[in-house]
Amino acid sequence: MRGGRRGGRTFRSGIVRGARRDGRGGRLRHAGILRRLKLTEIASRLDCRLEGDGSVDVRRLAGIEEAQPGDLTFFVNPKYASHVRATRASAVIVADGVQVTPPAGVAVLRTKNPYLAFARAAEMFAPPAAIARGIHPLASVAASASVAPDAAIAAFVSIGEGVRIGARTLLFPHVTVGDGATIGDDCVLHARVSVRERVTLGHRVVVQDGAVIGSDGFGFARTAEGAHHKIPQAGGVVIEDDVEIGANTTIDRPAVGETRIGAGTKIDNLVQIAHGVKIGKGVLLAAQVGIAGSTRLGDQVTLAGQVGVAGHLTVGAGVVATAQTGIPNSIEPGKFVSGYPAIDNRDWLKSSAVFRRLPELKKAVSALQRRLDELEARFKS
Amino acid sequence: MRGGRRGGRTFRSGIVRGARRDGRGGRLRHAGILRRLKLTEIASRLDCRLEGDGSVDVRRLAGIEEAQPGDLTFFVNPKYASHVRATRASAVIVADGVQVTPPAGVAVLRTKNPYLAFARAAEMFAPPAAIARGIHPLASVAASASVAPDAAIAAFVSIGEGVRIGARTLLFPHVTVGDGATIGDDCVLHARVSVRERVTLGHRVVVQDGAVIGSDGFGFARTAEGAHHKIPQAGGVVIEDDVEIGANTTIDRPAVGETRIGAGTKIDNLVQIAHGVKIGKGVLLAAQVGIAGSTRLGDQVTLAGQVGVAGHLTVGAGVVATAQTGIPNSIEPGKFVSGYPAIDNRDWLKSSAVFRRLPELKKAVSALQRRLDELEARFKS
Amino acid sequence: MRGGRRGGRTFRSGIVRGARRDGRGGRLRHAGILRRLKLTEIASRLDCRLEGDGSVDVRRLAGIEEAQPGDLTFFVNPKYASHVRATRASAVIVADGVQVTPPAGVAVLRTKNPYLAFARAAEMFAPPAAIARGIHPLASVAASASVAPDAAIAAFVSIGEGVRIGARTLLFPHVTVGDGATIGDDCVLHARVSVRERVTLGHRVVVQDGAVIGSDGFGFARTAEGAHHKIPQAGGVVIEDDVEIGANTTIDRPAVGETRIGAGTKIDNLVQIAHGVKIGKGVLLAAQVGIAGSTRLGDQVTLAGQVGVAGHLTVGAGVVATAQTGIPNSIEPGKFVSGYPAIDNRDWLKSSAVFRRLPELKKAVSALQRRLDELEARFKS
Repeated sequence: MRGGRRGGRTFRSGIVRGARRDGRGGRLRHAGILRRLKLTEIASRLDCRLEGDGSVDVRRLAGIEEAQPGDLTFFVNPKYASHVRATRASAVIVADGVQVTPPAGVAVLRTKNPYLAFARAAEMFAPPAAIARGIHPLASVAASASVAPDAAIAAFVSIGEGVRIGARTLLFPHVTVGDGATIGDDCVLHARVSVRERVTLGHRVVVQDGAVIGSDGFGFARTAEGAHHKIPQAGGVVIEDDVEIGANTTIDRPAVGETRIGAGTKIDNLVQIAHGVKIGKGVLLAAQVGIAGSTRLGDQVTLAGQVGVAGHLTVGAGVVATAQTGIPNSIEPGKFVSGYPAIDNRDWLKSSAVFRRLPELKKAVSALQRRLDELEARFKS
Repeated sequence: MRGGRRGGRTFRSGIVRGARRDGRGGRLRHAGILRRLKLTEIASRLDCRLEGDGSVDVRRLAGIEEAQPGDLTFFVNPKYASHVRATRASAVIVADGVQVTPPAGVAVLRTKNPYLAFARAAEMFAPPAAIARGIHPLASVAASASVAPDAAIAAFVSIGEGVRIGARTLLFPHVTVGDGATIGDDCVLHARVSVRERVTLGHRVVVQDGAVIGSDGFGFARTAEGAHHKIPQAGGVVIEDDVEIGANTTIDRPAVGETRIGAGTKIDNLVQIAHGVKIGKGVLLAAQVGIAGSTRLGDQVTLAGQVGVAGHLTVGAGVVATAQTGIPNSIEPGKFVSGYPAIDNRDWLKSSAVFRRLPELKKAVSALQRRLDELEARFKS
Repeated sequence: MRGGRRGGRTFRSGIVRGARRDGRGGRLRHAGILRRLKLTEIASRLDCRLEGDGSVDVRRLAGIEEAQPGDLTFFVNPKYASHVRATRASAVIVADGVQVTPPAGVAVLRTKNPYLAFARAAEMFAPPAAIARGIHPLASVAASASVAPDAAIAAFVSIGEGVRIGARTLLFPHVTVGDGATIGDDCVLHARVSVRERVTLGHRVVVQDGAVIGSDGFGFARTAEGAHHKIPQAGGVVIEDDVEIGANTTIDRPAVGETRIGAGTKIDNLVQIAHGVKIGKGVLLAAQVGIAGSTRLGDQVTLAGQVGVAGHLTVGAGVVATAQTGIPNSIEPGKFVSGYPAIDNRDWLKSSAVFRRLPELKKAVSALQRRLDELEARFKS
């Protein structure tokens, strides 16, 4: 590989021609070799109680329907109870105290939290993300940028002036990092993510392909002539530690102040976070949710798919909204809401049940009117 | 052009300096020359019956309102009937047996399926997609990738280890193909598409700009402390033959098993397909539709714009849902549904009609109450 | 920097190694130096009446809650009235005639349109967008493309054959401009924007990251066998002057004719504009709005977040729709609508209020039925 530093700028030309290398500068990629772990070892590492033969080899994680001999699966959703009885898996992770009758010879791993145990088992088998450490010769890195030596910067990544990239962070191809942005340690930015100028990402932030962090907020002032005059959006965006951001999601910057996503919050694909929104910690936003400008979401809020929240509101901690809910007003902490405009979930379920039978209700009212007309007439006569 | 193979990796430097070339390695681009076809030839190639002068030259396809002399247009939507009478087109494609009265001198092409005939006529006039065959010197192709010699790989395309790209497939600028992915023959991936690691695309798959195939599913396990622990999403995504995927659409991979899009399915822009979803053949998903995790859609399902479908459901073959429908439960094959929660379309139309007049209905009930109060009082006395 | 023209194609190799330069070819970037302006000067430039000490230095714009000494803020939304009384800002922009009581020592700038004055103040302090003028050596520019000498073309930009890029236009990294497209003067295309073949952008158009302009419309003709046959989408897209397009928004091209966005229209993030849509001037489309094929929106229409509009409709000038509205039919100019299907906003508010109490209404009807049954029975006897 040719390369070096010229004129104060990290500079390399040519294309990496090697593939998998060891040690420093080596590829982080899993070589595609199937792992094979004894069930006893898995049980021990997951802190599960083993019921059955621990000497069996596990090679793969699988869903309960698709699982084959050699696979480890899990049972959480009661919908799939019948599948446990028929599974071909070698072992099933099941919650303490839950009665299951898998086929003979299928081992059971008992734990308090089977879904978490499954997540941890998946980590044992998952191939790690794949980019060579160091800066790819076809990346463009500004002279004043600082990139940790064990970070991985793929081909066609563009890094602006004054940018800082932390230790072990991976930037996949076509990531763009604007001037003055900061990205912490152990982050993974998948292909084609935009991190705009002066945006800050904490540590262990994961961003899926095509997401945009720091685009201009939708802010316009109306002139006397009725035109929409752009308000420069010069505010900041802060993504705290352990946040995940989904594919093609967009997070806008405000004119002043900042947009902030709290630590541990997870955001799905195609979500819109407008300028100046403040999102608490541990929040879950499902796909296609939209949050309008300057709204605040408390900690541990959960919004299901396609929910919309109007601007300048406060949604209290722990609020849950079901899919497609529209929230036009602030909501007290802990509420469970549905519908548009959003109301208490149970009320909405009841009202929706009546909605289906509105034509009947209307007919019933008409029938009552006729009967009453008749009764009044007879009473008069 | 400099270039060659060094160190086992396809490698070329510099920028293609030629433009349109012939034969192997030549540009596939249409040179911008207007075609000119006799109406008789078009009629013959489309297998249409010609009514009128076949010697007229057709140069362009056009909508019925905008059409000018020299244009071929079509009539399908009865909304536009008045436009047929006033069209300036040289010829109109019309269904067999449909009565039309175009201006004198306007020819008519008769066929069973005028929209399909129009589609085929459009193919005669449309400029083919434009990229030079071969690998652009500013593309990054891993050593172990296999690219068909007549594929076209544009500038700034990134192709990972072990990738296979089929014959005549076009990758526009900034496409990223992750390690181990497979793309079949005659595919077109427009600019900035992400095909993530180990994803499989069949033949003749078309993907519009910015779509993401294989991003991590939104899967987290809750820890005892209430944190959301990421479940590695190591499953696969399979896109079968003849699928089209719209701009900025996102298709997630699951933790285990696969997400699958059936042959001939067409997906519009900004659609979200979550982890583990299985979509049948010949399905149509309009823009901004969202399908939550593990749901199955049967063959020939049609979901209109902004429809949402909850997770772990089965939507039967042939189901049609109108725009903005929310589907929280499984649906039997062949149903036509609307509303949120989704109900039978006709019931929803009736209930919606009553919804508009709910204040009246409420007043009618109050009036009945007053009249009944009075009648009861008079009856008592 | 190596570079030059070879074989008729603009060609440069290597990476720009300098950073901030002056004059022609210099970076347009603000060097990060904080501005400092006297309040008297700001008042004069904004044409505001000053109440208070004009000698104070202003260094920053800020929201009314976050503002610190040295900051200029503004007061428009009555929700924030209490914040004016407590602000730590050095000065507040307030509308003529509005009574406010900021803390002692806080100056007030009076104007007819405080939001517009704030926008103009923001322009004084905002850092200008940052790319070096000229063509980055890692850009790919076709031989036949014409790029204004004072335009700025960043790394990894791909510009096709016959493209024209106007004066002072900025293309951020990874922008793709397809063959035959035209981009006017003073445009800003942020990172990873796709401008597809033959698309036309006017002057002063701003496009946020990841937006797609000119993707294929979702047009398929059904064959006798039930397959969806693609109709080539060869029409055009025209974006008029002063339009802004949000991050990851998608604007499709039609099979014939054109899609057109009128001058001064502003489109937020993740919006879908289908093939052949015609949007008037000065329209506002909030995030996640979807407009189906061939629909026309008049001038000054405003659609709030997640609104959907069906195809082949006309939405009259000045129509306003609240968030999540679904529009299945054409709407007369000037209407204010809500709900799905969309009805007059006031009617919808009233019907929604009754919807919440539908279970009560149903019980009231049942009670009436019982009372009437009884009364009829007594009357008979």
